[in-house]
Amino acid sequence: MATMTKRELPNRLLLGPGPANVHPQIMVALQQPVLGHLDPVFQEILVETAGQLRRLFGTENELTLAVTGTGFSGMESCLANLIEPGDTMLVGVNGFFGTRMADFAKRFGAEVVEVTAPWGQPLAAEDVDNALHANPSVKVVGIVHGETSTGVRQPIEEIARVAHAHGALVLMDAVTTLGGLPVMVDAWGVDAAYSASQKCVGTISGLAPLTFSPRARERLAQRAAALPTWYHDVEALHQYWSAQGFYHHTCSSTLVYGLKAALDLMDEEGIENRFARHQQCGDALKAGLEAMGLSLVAAAGHRLPMLTTVRIPDGAEDLDVRKALLAGHGIEIAGGLGPLMGQIWRIGLMGYAARPVNVRTFLAAFAQILTDRGCTIDADAGKAAAEAHLAQ
Amino acid sequence: MATMTKRELPNRLLLGPGPANVHPQIMVALQQPVLGHLDPVFQEILVETAGQLRRLFGTENELTLAVTGTGFSGMESCLANLIEPGDTMLVGVNGFFGTRMADFAKRFGAEVVEVTAPWGQPLAAEDVDNALHANPSVKVVGIVHGETSTGVRQPIEEIARVAHAHGALVLMDAVTTLGGLPVMVDAWGVDAAYSASQKCVGTISGLAPLTFSPRARERLAQRAAALPTWYHDVEALHQYWSAQGFYHHTCSSTLVYGLKAALDLMDEEGIENRFARHQQCGDALKAGLEAMGLSLVAAAGHRLPMLTTVRIPDGAEDLDVRKALLAGHGIEIAGGLGPLMGQIWRIGLMGYAARPVNVRTFLAAFAQILTDRGCTIDADAGKAAAEAHLAQ
Repeated sequence: MATMTKRELPNRLLLGPGPANVHPQIMVALQQPVLGHLDPVFQEILVETAGQLRRLFGTENELTLAVTGTGFSGMESCLANLIEPGDTMLVGVNGFFGTRMADFAKRFGAEVVEVTAPWGQPLAAEDVDNALHANPSVKVVGIVHGETSTGVRQPIEEIARVAHAHGALVLMDAVTTLGGLPVMVDAWGVDAAYSASQKCVGTISGLAPLTFSPRARERLAQRAAALPTWYHDVEALHQYWSAQGFYHHTCSSTLVYGLKAALDLMDEEGIENRFARHQQCGDALKAGLEAMGLSLVAAAGHRLPMLTTVRIPDGAEDLDVRKALLAGHGIEIAGGLGPLMGQIWRIGLMGYAARPVNVRTFLAAFAQILTDRGCTIDADAGKAAAEAHLAQ
Repeated sequence: MATMTKRELPNRLLLGPGPANVHPQIMVALQQPVLGHLDPVFQEILVETAGQLRRLFGTENELTLAVTGTGFSGMESCLANLIEPGDTMLVGVNGFFGTRMADFAKRFGAEVVEVTAPWGQPLAAEDVDNALHANPSVKVVGIVHGETSTGVRQPIEEIARVAHAHGALVLMDAVTTLGGLPVMVDAWGVDAAYSASQKCVGTISGLAPLTFSPRARERLAQRAAALPTWYHDVEALHQYWSAQGFYHHTCSSTLVYGLKAALDLMDEEGIENRFARHQQCGDALKAGLEAMGLSLVAAAGHRLPMLTTVRIPDGAEDLDVRKALLAGHGIEIAGGLGPLMGQIWRIGLMGYAARPVNVRTFLAAFAQILTDRGCTIDADAGKAAAEAHLAQ
């Protein structure tokens, strides 16, 4: 077996739900010299990075930072801090990640009220309202902004309004959306939100950005029960990620360099341009797939730009097609999760991977593979429909 | 503010308790192309890495992997899985990290029996034995192998023997020792152990290697209470870190490349040579400091090679000296934790940083700074004493 440095690894085109391909400038940033987690120079970088994260989250929340861990680590952080045993939490469940959020909340002792919608449909704010009327003790409403298992974008702003009318805090999962769609924590009235570093933020995985509003922090200050976790204690993390710089854990300078380089790239590109790029590529891909004759999973009008879900057509088999894409073309896409396993594919266009060239490359390879398997698709129509968006 | 890629960061000599400087080959490995967390090529790398971790831990435990998070994340993983609310756990407390382990155990609902020793002294197996006689309900005995706050190496093997005689499982914190001292999980009868990636293992921080014995896993299988965490569910992590490759979290290929490159370097150097290098450098440093006229903190015969603790001499002030080392010489060392804050310094020689040249560089700069401050030290004697070890 070759050592890690000498090993020849494939260069994949990463079009799954993350990690996405990483911009070369970020790879360069990872080579910056390692600094200690309490080095004053690194502390400056942390404070600057927190400021950039605030802008990205659309918030002035002082408690804004990144946990060392993946997106689920962000989810655990938020729930561990917001939930006390016996609290009632409402969770929107219409996909794998909402289901997971409900599960996490239960592990931390919450009574969970689930508001559901069919997988592929968004949650209705009205259903949340009704559930809150029926369950006035709900303290936290948790919603996934972009449900990566279905490709659905949820109406966070409406749901947050309803939740606040009932006096509940709002927790938002922005794992898939942050950096690819507007995420406006303050304007929407979101009290806590978490994300991940390897999707539309665009660096390697290993950090989970999160933010807590002053209102959420009041709740933390009033907790009766001790926090069940120390690693995910957000107030202790905040004391580290601030000018005080109190030791909490050995935060990796390398991971933070990558995150900061990704945030620098957003500043350079302009966040609106970045959102437009994700929208254009996502629209082109969806138009191409539909023109080829395939069916999209997410309800029209509620589709995520960065993550497209498509039904597996007759004649094609999930793993066979994904293996052909990976082995023959070096392209990674993902299958379905839970009840959608074997039924759908999930195609991501995130961060650096959200580029017209990748839409073209994917559609050509995908059309070829499906045609080879005897599926009835119109490759030319697909290409033309995608190009109509890409030429705009 | 310069962007992350263009920023001129200092090249520190990292002689604190980790992160240590990272070997250039590991930095190269971090540049390998990002792979998806479910890519079959990456899965092979995970399986190989798990095999190398087994050898490093001295174990045949099938459940051997790395959690995405820092060393404390490994500590939380082990305690969250091993402890059920109401369980009694014995924790050896003679430093900051033992104190932290006791705190984590309480958060997971354990009744904690603390066996203490003065900071700077090792725990006595006899004290553990007595405490187990007095508390026959103890299910888990938790011990820190290398107490990084004091520089003390603990007699794990003896304590494990005692714990097993009482039918308790043994949990070992090997955060500081793994990769720098023999850690023999199977031979010592350790049931669960965790470490970190950025100390003697020698890569960047962000991963916490851990291992669970079949006996520990039986305990997990018999749990009555649901696990309070999903992120740290070691059985689910194991299903991911094995040939099955079930999705658990978005493990960073980059972090794993770094870890595997670090393990490759150990294979190349030979683990015994690596241990000898840490011992030689640590001995030289200690001899140098004592010959200079300074006092070591850890009891003789129980000193860690990779982490040396020394009392701050009269005339010197903690932060002033550390700032002079950092600003004037680019050398990072650490201060004391808890009751030793302001009383001691902690000097690490870990992984790639454990080299004779670094011992010399540090002692010269340190002697200069202390002399400048009017401390009564014998720099020449310190140098000669260190060289006597380095010349061997």
